[in-house]
Amino acid sequence: MGDTIKSEIHLALVHYPVYNKVGEVVTSSVTTLDIHDISRVARTYAVSSFCVVTPLKTQRQLVERLIKHWMTGYGAEYNPTRKEALLVTRVMNNLTETVRDLTDRYGKKPVIVATGAKKLPKSVGFQYLRKEITRGEPILLLFGTGWGLEKSILKAADYVLDPVEGVGEYNHLPVRAAIAIILDRLVAR
Amino acid sequence: MGDTIKSEIHLALVHYPVYNKVGEVVTSSVTTLDIHDISRVARTYAVSSFCVVTPLKTQRQLVERLIKHWMTGYGAEYNPTRKEALLVTRVMNNLTETVRDLTDRYGKKPVIVATGAKKLPKSVGFQYLRKEITRGEPILLLFGTGWGLEKSILKAADYVLDPVEGVGEYNHLPVRAAIAIILDRLVAR
Repeated sequence: MGDTIKSEIHLALVHYPVYNKVGEVVTSSVTTLDIHDISRVARTYAVSSFCVVTPLKTQRQLVERLIKHWMTGYGAEYNPTRKEALLVTRVMNNLTETVRDLTDRYGKKPVIVATGAKKLPKSVGFQYLRKEITRGEPILLLFGTGWGLEKSILKAADYVLDPVEGVGEYNHLPVRAAIAIILDRLVAR
Repeated sequence: MGDTIKSEIHLALVHYPVYNKVGEVVTSSVTTLDIHDISRVARTYAVSSFCVVTPLKTQRQLVERLIKHWMTGYGAEYNPTRKEALLVTRVMNNLTETVRDLTDRYGKKPVIVATGAKKLPKSVGFQYLRKEITRGEPILLLFGTGWGLEKSILKAADYVLDPVEGVGEYNHLPVRAAIAIILDRLVAR
């Protein structure tokens, strides 16, 4: 685990297209607590950006308002560690826009890694991805809300990461917890 | 990391005595989302019990009502993975009661491990605690809400666990995220 992390890592929390409980493709609602929790976790592991991805304009505005509240004026003074966490948080319309933005920034496409609760034929392990991270390519980790990322996203990704396995068969982690565990496994010294 | 986990592990989420933002000792409010998230994480890592500790009777009743809602009738049918997670969740008045209950169950006191964001002279590392867990003694991990466990609890604990370090100086993880990361480091294969 001694290799140096050279890659800049980006997270996307995807609200569309994701599955609901009965397997339909839906747009899930933004949860404001996700924004705060994941921003803090992202900041802890020196993630370069955390993109909240939703096609719903009102939901993007909600997140923008939330970020503005904690970045300026009373909110920033009241809770400076929350302000610091939200420095990396951004709002995006869809994944295409997210990837294009990163491609513009780096002059090349980021390596896209989808995550989920199921192992697929193309799944790779945590050690494998840790090696990728030491090569210096920018990485975009995709996390699905609701019941997980729609299959076209898994198909289009460069890699799918192995699911987080605990002990036994239960694998219904909240996305907030999965992100914390995955970043710790990939990035912590 | 190949050693077998022999110990039964218990979690306590402590709402008193904890610090608030300005360093006063207070009783924090129960967050229902903590209950759901931590129950799922506890279930994922085969934790034996997750104790929500608060001296406030109305808050204990709130948690009991929440558990009952998801364990029986419509709630259980609507969301069976939530039901399964809450099987390990319990409500306790204070830490003394929590420790006494476990002592009665095992015929000996559990090993008490406090957690927090600061390294103390008595702090031990994750590898050290993993070894303890293979010895088979029951373990009680204490997590503080708000701005962390009051110092008397850290003093009375058998061990204090090293803080979770990410990359850089920022260490303001939500307790939900800290619990997920700590269980993964201690228990995952």
